[in-house]
Amino acid sequence: MIVIGVDIGGTSMKGAAITDKGEILDRFSLKMDRLATPEVSYGALCDAIENFLKDKPYKNEIKGVGLGVPGILDRELGIVKSSPNMPKWINFKINDFVQKKLNLPVKIVNDASSAALGEAKFGTGKNYKNIVMITLGTGVGGGIIIDGKLYDGLGSTGAQLGHSVIRYNGRLCGCGRRGCLEAYASATALIKEANLRKEKYPESGLNKVKEIEAKTVFDLAREKDKLALKLVKEYVTYLSEGLLNICNEFRPELILLSGGVANEGDYLVKKITNYMARHHYGYINAPKVPVKLASLGYDSGKIGAASLFFE
Amino acid sequence: MIVIGVDIGGTSMKGAAITDKGEILDRFSLKMDRLATPEVSYGALCDAIENFLKDKPYKNEIKGVGLGVPGILDRELGIVKSSPNMPKWINFKINDFVQKKLNLPVKIVNDASSAALGEAKFGTGKNYKNIVMITLGTGVGGGIIIDGKLYDGLGSTGAQLGHSVIRYNGRLCGCGRRGCLEAYASATALIKEANLRKEKYPESGLNKVKEIEAKTVFDLAREKDKLALKLVKEYVTYLSEGLLNICNEFRPELILLSGGVANEGDYLVKKITNYMARHHYGYINAPKVPVKLASLGYDSGKIGAASLFFE
Repeated sequence: MIVIGVDIGGTSMKGAAITDKGEILDRFSLKMDRLATPEVSYGALCDAIENFLKDKPYKNEIKGVGLGVPGILDRELGIVKSSPNMPKWINFKINDFVQKKLNLPVKIVNDASSAALGEAKFGTGKNYKNIVMITLGTGVGGGIIIDGKLYDGLGSTGAQLGHSVIRYNGRLCGCGRRGCLEAYASATALIKEANLRKEKYPESGLNKVKEIEAKTVFDLAREKDKLALKLVKEYVTYLSEGLLNICNEFRPELILLSGGVANEGDYLVKKITNYMARHHYGYINAPKVPVKLASLGYDSGKIGAASLFFE
Repeated sequence: MIVIGVDIGGTSMKGAAITDKGEILDRFSLKMDRLATPEVSYGALCDAIENFLKDKPYKNEIKGVGLGVPGILDRELGIVKSSPNMPKWINFKINDFVQKKLNLPVKIVNDASSAALGEAKFGTGKNYKNIVMITLGTGVGGGIIIDGKLYDGLGSTGAQLGHSVIRYNGRLCGCGRRGCLEAYASATALIKEANLRKEKYPESGLNKVKEIEAKTVFDLAREKDKLALKLVKEYVTYLSEGLLNICNEFRPELILLSGGVANEGDYLVKKITNYMARHHYGYINAPKVPVKLASLGYDSGKIGAASLFFE
């Protein structure tokens, strides 16, 4: 079976033809204007898919289109109710619109959840039934797989794992609450802290780069830069506390890390695992939960969206 | 169908014959010595069940025995691996033991989860598919129902919702971590705070009672006692932050409150609902989650354990 899977973001839509083995055959992408009407954006997507398929030998074998969509959804009705970064996407019937244009079945899923679904079906999670994935990027996102199936709660807003307060009355989060995990464990939070504190550490390498990224902080920590080490230690502490919370709330078989900061790889995983092993799990003898890196990278969202048809 | 459901606690075992409509026909109970071997305790339970059934007209219609067991379980194998308050319950094969003695099928479930299951099947939750229940008692427990089924994670330790840190580096929790919801939202925490602070408020009614209970604090708050109002306000704040976290993590259709503090009823629910409405849900326009009171009281555990056979 071949399905079109598309990962829809605030600046671009990235799609591919994907087999039910999770293999990517060919890719396409188009720019997105987040301020455009949904008719314009999804119209452009349909045109791009038609154009993409035109010369493909499998063009008549496509069984459906799976879309990873940011926002509050009614998955059964195929509607995006609202989307934080796309102000005009209000109660737009995605499924009806795309189905009519392409004459193909359409399924939608929240973008963060689609990435988790991809990893659960074809990535690091493929041999596990209960998985929580945390995405460490601009924000902190989450995806929850229970009994092999996606759990995304009311309006597909049930895996906002970055918006769990771990420090009451702490740093202001973009969501309006104070002390959310996202305000401590996103790349954005790490970069912000680095910029706030670098002046007090004139000898730190963080003063020598034009623009600090999360990677800059980790690279300097590996070189034993004092401030960078401090920042990484704090980052790991908060993130690990968040992951211990997830252990106690879900006790999944596996925690997966994805997103930009997860590119720090084993260096990060080792620090997290050490922290978690030294701290309590909220229950004597409670089973420890392995923390692993997601493996599909930026393809996880497309593959997860396509996999909606592989059930 | 009639099933024996038993709620096993640290001081007693409380059971009943329960129909598949969730009706309790007759009850029994026996004392528990938490330091005894599991052979002694479960042996006594089997004797009690045999004795209980002896003169019942339905004694030959019993289809099974469902047990709500505190501790880390392997539900499929019917084993309690360990139990925090029962030190000798190590890798004990409950199902085998009870099955042999009574010649009836046996199923086990974690005690906190069995209460949630009871409420989900026959209590306030019966028309909902995705429910999170929080038990506010000596500790703070949790139960998670997803798609109508219990989710309890690895070793049945996956709904330890009281052991999620909401205040990093905060109050020491019994589990060993600092800042867990339990350290702020349990009856124990409320009582502890009341005792710690009452001397500074000599005019407070909290100085006039022999032993402060959670109910004492709430009763005095209703009478506008200054310290009691302050304590209730803080209690509600922390609890509500924990519930907002649950909204963002699970976005269930319903949050249920049970346990001793939930007896404060609408007075408590109204305060929580107000707090949650004034604060952010981590997502613009995210659906609000109703908070309701559990309705089966102390029977929820027995009924939930019995309901393992009603699927």
